[in-house]
Amino acid sequence: MLVNKRTVRIEWGDCDPAGIVYFPRYFAIMDNCTAHLFEYATGLTKIQLTDKLDFAGFPMVDIRARFHVPTKYGDDVVVESKIAEFGKSRFEVEHRLLKDGQLCVEGFETRVWVGLHPDDPKRLKSKPIPEEIVKLFGAPVREKA
Amino acid sequence: MLVNKRTVRIEWGDCDPAGIVYFPRYFAIMDNCTAHLFEYATGLTKIQLTDKLDFAGFPMVDIRARFHVPTKYGDDVVVESKIAEFGKSRFEVEHRLLKDGQLCVEGFETRVWVGLHPDDPKRLKSKPIPEEIVKLFGAPVREKA
Amino acid sequence: MLVNKRTVRIEWGDCDPAGIVYFPRYFAIMDNCTAHLFEYATGLTKIQLTDKLDFAGFPMVDIRARFHVPTKYGDDVVVESKIAEFGKSRFEVEHRLLKDGQLCVEGFETRVWVGLHPDDPKRLKSKPIPEEIVKLFGAPVREKA
Amino acid sequence: MLVNKRTVRIEWGDCDPAGIVYFPRYFAIMDNCTAHLFEYATGLTKIQLTDKLDFAGFPMVDIRARFHVPTKYGDDVVVESKIAEFGKSRFEVEHRLLKDGQLCVEGFETRVWVGLHPDDPKRLKSKPIPEEIVKLFGAPVREKA
Repeated sequence: MLVNKRTVRIEWGDCDPAGIVYFPRYFAIMDNCTAHLFEYATGLTKIQLTDKLDFAGFPMVDIRARFHVPTKYGDDVVVESKIAEFGKSRFEVEHRLLKDGQLCVEGFETRVWVGLHPDDPKRLKSKPIPEEIVKLFGAPVREKA
Repeated sequence: MLVNKRTVRIEWGDCDPAGIVYFPRYFAIMDNCTAHLFEYATGLTKIQLTDKLDFAGFPMVDIRARFHVPTKYGDDVVVESKIAEFGKSRFEVEHRLLKDGQLCVEGFETRVWVGLHPDDPKRLKSKPIPEEIVKLFGAPVREKA
Repeated sequence: MLVNKRTVRIEWGDCDPAGIVYFPRYFAIMDNCTAHLFEYATGLTKIQLTDKLDFAGFPMVDIRARFHVPTKYGDDVVVESKIAEFGKSRFEVEHRLLKDGQLCVEGFETRVWVGLHPDDPKRLKSKPIPEEIVKLFGAPVREKA
Repeated sequence: MLVNKRTVRIEWGDCDPAGIVYFPRYFAIMDNCTAHLFEYATGLTKIQLTDKLDFAGFPMVDIRARFHVPTKYGDDVVVESKIAEFGKSRFEVEHRLLKDGQLCVEGFETRVWVGLHPDDPKRLKSKPIPEEIVKLFGAPVREKA
């Protein structure tokens, strides 16, 4: 199964007065990592996917994170990201953020694949994830949607 | 049970190229609302609590959010925040973000009450939540920690 | 001349490991205050102005800030915002951020009034600021553009 | 003269509903680039400098930016950063942000080198920038402070 690894520097402005990462920043890091995971798998940025497919993004419907060990300014952390499962139009992304090999943060995203609504281009509509995309990740596929 | 309500304006910089709130911003809004809930209940800011009690904050250990309806620039949303349950040193906060009475986002935080470590003031240590604090919220208290 | 005053709470996530506001956050505060200044003067949000006028925003072309005194978590600061001068399509906004009456930060924005480009709605084009808008502020108007 | 170049990906969350970078994000990018410039010149992170020298940071006193061309989600921009001039304790940093070789944003920071106040470790005090640091940059030095 495809796993994308990125090294991310924790910057001064990511941290709060306790000297550790302000937790909403982890969600921005994870969101970036999901975009980079798709770029790694498809060879295309999210913008390029929009041009190639009837695709308008993968908005978040549910997200959870567990914070085990704080990280702080100057740390170089590694984020491992993968698709945990593909449903019909929903999919699950998992992130593991590690520092010196130690698991610090886990993130679990549920997203939905969407296109523009056929009746109203200002609205979005969930769509089946294209099989050609699913294949690229080698991730488990749920039998029932 | 004590519920704090705050009206929050969704600002331009809270939103992303899809024109809706960039989801990590919701977590900053929730974090602010937890601080304001404690201020409402105790009459003291978190900083003032630090001076009065052997208290060094309530770091997050687990957080989850569900996104039902997007909100966008210029919306005035209402966030209702309450303590769902107090354990011995852990506690659960729930946030409901509404727009025109419609539930848009739910957030579920698990935090731990901490003080400075007696052996090393650079470290933190979980501590029992003071009874005088717990009483102020009228929230359920878990029998077993 | 119209001056809009807003009280802004400095939140935990606005601050850095030095315990003071992370300076890019001041620019988000100022940007919000410019939007609120226009809302105060016109009675319409920026979104509503877009619907009413051939108007697509007022992007920043130049900004400067001076930092005199730091502010920190829990501070309630007051931001005074006004139009310093209107040109033909450019205008200058000034912000003064005060804590307990003491000037902490000054900001100087130069923005341009834009509409959609008549030949290509994906592009923007600077436009004369409507006289009906300029009048509402009672601000100096530059003779020459 | 030492110039540090970094490639920075513009991420989804850096951008606003107009689809371009929300300008306060440029200041976070510049702040990171100043930290990386010092790391490049000294071989030490800001945290490591704090341990080695009587040094507590280089807070901003004045900053200016000019926005020439917008950048947007998915762009890989290059930021060139250098010290424009060293004074006694003040120094000037310049950033040029380019996309495909075109200058998009310029930033001009004035910062002050500080240490802990000898009489009160909770306060900061400006200090002469150590000569050993100044030498590493090969930047102009102002004759008079």
